[in-house]
Amino acid sequence: MKKFRLNLKAIFFCVVVAWVVFAATVALPQIDDPLQSWNDGPAKKAIVHFVKEVTSTGSENFVPPAERIAVFDNDGTLWAEQPMYFQIEFVFDRVKALASKHPEWKQKQPFKGALEGDLEAVFANTKNALLELLMATHTGNTTGEFSQIVKDWIATARHRKSGRPYTDMVYQPMLELLAYLRANGFKTFIVSGGGIDFIRVWSEKVYGIPPEQVIGSSIKTQFELRNGRPAIVRLPEVNFNNDKTGKPIAINQHIGRRPIAAFGNSDGDLPMLQWTAAGEGARFCLYVHHTDAKREWAYGRKSHIGKLDKGLDEARSKGWTVVDMRKDWDRVFAFEELKLDGRQ
Amino acid sequence: MKKFRLNLKAIFFCVVVAWVVFAATVALPQIDDPLQSWNDGPAKKAIVHFVKEVTSTGSENFVPPAERIAVFDNDGTLWAEQPMYFQIEFVFDRVKALASKHPEWKQKQPFKGALEGDLEAVFANTKNALLELLMATHTGNTTGEFSQIVKDWIATARHRKSGRPYTDMVYQPMLELLAYLRANGFKTFIVSGGGIDFIRVWSEKVYGIPPEQVIGSSIKTQFELRNGRPAIVRLPEVNFNNDKTGKPIAINQHIGRRPIAAFGNSDGDLPMLQWTAAGEGARFCLYVHHTDAKREWAYGRKSHIGKLDKGLDEARSKGWTVVDMRKDWDRVFAFEELKLDGRQ
Repeated sequence: MKKFRLNLKAIFFCVVVAWVVFAATVALPQIDDPLQSWNDGPAKKAIVHFVKEVTSTGSENFVPPAERIAVFDNDGTLWAEQPMYFQIEFVFDRVKALASKHPEWKQKQPFKGALEGDLEAVFANTKNALLELLMATHTGNTTGEFSQIVKDWIATARHRKSGRPYTDMVYQPMLELLAYLRANGFKTFIVSGGGIDFIRVWSEKVYGIPPEQVIGSSIKTQFELRNGRPAIVRLPEVNFNNDKTGKPIAINQHIGRRPIAAFGNSDGDLPMLQWTAAGEGARFCLYVHHTDAKREWAYGRKSHIGKLDKGLDEARSKGWTVVDMRKDWDRVFAFEELKLDGRQ
Repeated sequence: MKKFRLNLKAIFFCVVVAWVVFAATVALPQIDDPLQSWNDGPAKKAIVHFVKEVTSTGSENFVPPAERIAVFDNDGTLWAEQPMYFQIEFVFDRVKALASKHPEWKQKQPFKGALEGDLEAVFANTKNALLELLMATHTGNTTGEFSQIVKDWIATARHRKSGRPYTDMVYQPMLELLAYLRANGFKTFIVSGGGIDFIRVWSEKVYGIPPEQVIGSSIKTQFELRNGRPAIVRLPEVNFNNDKTGKPIAINQHIGRRPIAAFGNSDGDLPMLQWTAAGEGARFCLYVHHTDAKREWAYGRKSHIGKLDKGLDEARSKGWTVVDMRKDWDRVFAFEELKLDGRQ
């Protein structure tokens, strides 16, 4: 009886050992893959190759951690931008929220169109419709008040197609890429055409990117003592438009050194990628190409939103990495199931 | 003989043990003091108390590391600013270096005064003399070219009184304070009226503050493709004057959250300190008061450079910490000997 018990123990022990060996050699590498939502392919391979190149101490392209700056566009690169930039949805919701204080808006474009959800009417009448809506809805309050408004909106608003919170519409492969870069000593920045004070409210929670690493378009502000209490008040005047050539200018202004990696999805990101690529040593530029009409959207050369035309040509001629969303991403959003098709 | 040898070993062992015990209880605490150039006094006590309060997990004033933002003025707070702001010395040296290309400067103020080292003449004739000199000497080149010029200058120029490199004129107690805060999870920023691109060149080496954590005054820039190669060119137009109310505005623009600690030396820093102090929870504001005519300079309420008048009154009425440089600092510069007078 005792001998039998010992044998049972031995068998159990062997099974455990076998399982551990199996897990360590076969199953675990897949679970531990920091880029598990990326299919094996040229894009994933290029990312991993670059990171190894700049982080291996023996490498001739080694970059000290302090200089491992990576910049990311936001709309269309880190989260979706269809059927309309999410911040424009916020603007429309703000017009509705403020409408009772502005009865004249019912008759006046572009506010009338915004209230009625009539996009064509909004953009048909005035050239600067968006600017007008932004100034009417984003200013006049303090920085603290505006942050609270964005915080409340992002917690409750829903994407018109998926019905999900906008913060669910972030690309899971890009979240993994951000974390992978940071685990390798990179400092990750957002460099967006969107509003700096809009993104900062939720970027730390959603992307792990703190406010001081968010660069965006901005309006002018004014410092005031209100009843002896300091306040920063938002003025109805554009301070900086962080798009196209504005991006490298803002990178220089905020970061003060040239990134070694840049990630975008449109022609508006091209100067940022050019600026990054033109530095010495190993550089990495990547375009997310929206090719997936089924899981996300398919658009590019002729799109009004996120047009990728000149950028795509330059990426191909310069050998930058172009992500084919349909092929390269195992899943687009975290709420999709991971397939892990054809992994080795 | 063998017994005698053993005794010698035992004695040696006892001496080593006694030395280690002595060092650990008496000598080492002094050597290990992260603020060793600060005399024991109210300023040092207040700093240590604040840091313990916001970093102790049990404390009701605990602040998560991500929110431990500390902002420092530069001129007069981290390095000296007498007898003239160091960047103005740089401007004068640039006028001299560029004079051969501008023969008309010999007859034209404020350039004539700058060439002759006649400060009174420089500032007597035109209201915007400094701006004119800045635009003539700081612009027209690329960001890379300008950085190289600053790098060369800071390596070779000498302070007119001490004869030392300007980077020797940094305050040793403040270097220790920067390191102490960072060791306690703080992120340290410079918020200077000086030029952002001037300070960034040497701030990482001298203060351990990377370029992306330097905020300063700036000029406008332009992104260009020069023979297909991207360049950021410096334009002769002011972008932002980072002084007085400009400081909290720039903090909001660059950092996007309110600091919990702020350090300055003049009325120009007052809005930054007010903005910091007005946040919720534990806050720390400190003024460096220049009271040491012997080791540094003594100035304040009536000074043209680094005027501290309203700020001093507000610091006293609000209970902010005021460093009395003569009493609170054991040494001002690293090249002085540490006295460690009257330490416990």
